[in-house]
Amino acid sequence: MELGKFFNPKTVAVIGASRNPEKVGNVLLKNLIESGEKLGRQIIPINPNAKEVLGKKAYPSISDTKEKIDLAIIAIPAKFVLESVEQCKEKNVKNLIIVTSGFSETGDKETEKRLKDYLNANNMKAIGVNCLGIFDAHTSMDALFIPKTKMRRPSAGGISFVCQSGAIGLAIIDIAAEKDYKFAKFISYGNATQLDESDYLEYLAKDKDTKVICMYIEGVKDGEKFYKTAKKVAKKKPIIVVKGGLTKEGDQATLSHTGTLAGKKETYFGIFNQANLIRADNLEEMFNIASILENPINVKGSRVQIVTNGGGYGIVSTDKVSETRNLQMAELSDSTSKTLRKVMPSYVNIRNPLDISGDATSKRYETALKHVSKDKNVDLILLVALYQTPLLSEDVVGIIEKAKKSTEKPIVVVSTGSEFTEKLSEMLIEKNIPVFSFPHLAIEALDKVIEYKKRLATR
Amino acid sequence: MELGKFFNPKTVAVIGASRNPEKVGNVLLKNLIESGEKLGRQIIPINPNAKEVLGKKAYPSISDTKEKIDLAIIAIPAKFVLESVEQCKEKNVKNLIIVTSGFSETGDKETEKRLKDYLNANNMKAIGVNCLGIFDAHTSMDALFIPKTKMRRPSAGGISFVCQSGAIGLAIIDIAAEKDYKFAKFISYGNATQLDESDYLEYLAKDKDTKVICMYIEGVKDGEKFYKTAKKVAKKKPIIVVKGGLTKEGDQATLSHTGTLAGKKETYFGIFNQANLIRADNLEEMFNIASILENPINVKGSRVQIVTNGGGYGIVSTDKVSETRNLQMAELSDSTSKTLRKVMPSYVNIRNPLDISGDATSKRYETALKHVSKDKNVDLILLVALYQTPLLSEDVVGIIEKAKKSTEKPIVVVSTGSEFTEKLSEMLIEKNIPVFSFPHLAIEALDKVIEYKKRLATR
Repeated sequence: MELGKFFNPKTVAVIGASRNPEKVGNVLLKNLIESGEKLGRQIIPINPNAKEVLGKKAYPSISDTKEKIDLAIIAIPAKFVLESVEQCKEKNVKNLIIVTSGFSETGDKETEKRLKDYLNANNMKAIGVNCLGIFDAHTSMDALFIPKTKMRRPSAGGISFVCQSGAIGLAIIDIAAEKDYKFAKFISYGNATQLDESDYLEYLAKDKDTKVICMYIEGVKDGEKFYKTAKKVAKKKPIIVVKGGLTKEGDQATLSHTGTLAGKKETYFGIFNQANLIRADNLEEMFNIASILENPINVKGSRVQIVTNGGGYGIVSTDKVSETRNLQMAELSDSTSKTLRKVMPSYVNIRNPLDISGDATSKRYETALKHVSKDKNVDLILLVALYQTPLLSEDVVGIIEKAKKSTEKPIVVVSTGSEFTEKLSEMLIEKNIPVFSFPHLAIEALDKVIEYKKRLATR
Repeated sequence: MELGKFFNPKTVAVIGASRNPEKVGNVLLKNLIESGEKLGRQIIPINPNAKEVLGKKAYPSISDTKEKIDLAIIAIPAKFVLESVEQCKEKNVKNLIIVTSGFSETGDKETEKRLKDYLNANNMKAIGVNCLGIFDAHTSMDALFIPKTKMRRPSAGGISFVCQSGAIGLAIIDIAAEKDYKFAKFISYGNATQLDESDYLEYLAKDKDTKVICMYIEGVKDGEKFYKTAKKVAKKKPIIVVKGGLTKEGDQATLSHTGTLAGKKETYFGIFNQANLIRADNLEEMFNIASILENPINVKGSRVQIVTNGGGYGIVSTDKVSETRNLQMAELSDSTSKTLRKVMPSYVNIRNPLDISGDATSKRYETALKHVSKDKNVDLILLVALYQTPLLSEDVVGIIEKAKKSTEKPIVVVSTGSEFTEKLSEMLIEKNIPVFSFPHLAIEALDKVIEYKKRLATR
């Protein structure tokens, strides 16, 4: 499924471009202009009652435009949508995003079926209906109808997010920007009238910017198509999924949400396991896992060495690692232990967790990392760094970056705190080192990553 | 155990007040001066090699001071501590905080035992050794040796935190400030040389500012004393506990951290259950639970009604509620359903979750909350409010506040997002309405709160 024109169109028409700043069609137009115009993207408002919207010449209908149009975004009431799609067909506009709601999710299955048939019969592609739009951090394509004052946009990176729910999409996009998760593409697809989750998976598998795929799905209409596609794609790129409507109560609620039946939990879990998808317990965990998998992770085993300047944090981290299904505490080799004994102060216990003490400097972190990362008994390093301690200075960031460059072993950082800590965490994330605010978040995510890698290796 | 003089002393001496801004004794003095001097608290540096520290006249030893001293904070090397304690005794200084490390946690049990015996024999009280100090948001008593540039301080409220680990203490204090958790007292007690967790519990039970007690403990030296005290205190105030060293691997690490043996997991869990403590799975959850219990919560049952403008969020919340051990989804009464059917748009399904749709205004939230909160079938309201949607404006905060005032039923809010969302969340927290950034965090915390309330009711 080729969807490139959706994410980097030369010309975009907004059907239902409104002059009223409270209307979806106005916000959408504004975001498209602000994000794309400076890159030469041409944005054309369609509005039968206005000559101009947001300073752009408006056309009464898409038929009146002169330009070749790569993508039309439809934001008009449901009853006018089909007619508008017909006009797009006449004008040879093949790619549509239909944000309009009020189809099967509110009971009108018939209109949605007619729309679907028309799209298929005419070889058109449509995202939606009842969706939030799309976003691409790399091409600066912002086709979302939420103002930036209410919702920030994440910066460019490797995470793509395919989301059936608009609400979840916008909340996650917003917090992703806050937490420095780096995004490639975001697709809100609502009712999946025509294009569905499988089509998006297939496209993202080939997309060079996408390194890891996150999915929130409620119901899958074509289970076999999904299974086949997901299984194929998961061999190339990790897919992390959160499934809504897993319980009886949740399932009942999905019907009135995206017009889909959520289906049996066991069936879905079976499909996810067979296709080697990573199942996240919640949306927060989904992006925690994604932040580790966004960059290539070359991990040979599951033995974790903890290095920390916070004794208690070392202990709760040890408890957590020991409780996971897939991780073990590493045992430092004799030679590493001997070397560390020589170079560390006498009050530092050479063990795992390696608590280098509250008076640790950046230099001491450097020494610890150097020896630990060379140890053949260590597969992963969990660095629990509390920047609040008096002797630890900002240059520890450079030390961690250097350590990361000098070893193939993954380094995952945990740091809890406010401004000062966040500043240092941002610097590390910028260098593609995953950072978590609590030990359990890092360890739960790592556990899922290792489980995935193990399964991948046996297939 | 009366510890009032620790938290609101008129005169504080800092033994080991250093002129070097990198030293603990300097940072400590600075924080004490900046937090307390404007309130008339007198801070006295003790330093044999300086006439003046941070602009204050310094004394060679505590014996040389003229004033009556309520509290002495000792920040000198371990080998000089006992002598310094003896001088305090001579000067009739009864209350000590000993931050110095290098006792049983690094193998020197004997010196610590002598120190303990001396303190007991002379009717002195000491927090420490090997601790971070204390903090009181109400009296503005900042006896922590971490600069404010590295660690923020939380504002005044009802959460007190007793923490065996210094590192965990400082990280949590810092993030608590960031997350707007409101604090009463913080006590870092390290090795618990003399005063121990039971003494702090007993004191906090009587402290008027403390509404809920959080504890991080590694080892309890006197299990029976702890059990009796905790059981008594838990009847008056909720106690939430995180226990470090629950696994074999974690247990081994505690010995070299605070010089205590963590002990058997089953033994501790037995004690916690019998005493009706709330066991949190991790530090984040501890404060999530505390943020609900910080204010009186009058909950009659465990039936949760979800109200949301985000369909997908409603569904994942429903799944999560249905998976808990102690919560159920409420079923709206016929009369509430009929009323809601009349006042809500036709496309809003009257059910639980009540998805009032992405086009919900503040007014629609008001209507929904009004009717739902009156329903006799509803015990708790989980309000999942996504502020990013176009038609929801800032005045929804006032609506939620009003709803809270007009019902005894707890209202817990979930909002995921960045700046705009955080601004509105802060406004709600300011009005004592708990807010969480993801549904699972709110629901897991509520589950523990309801479990606690149920057990409390049967005892």
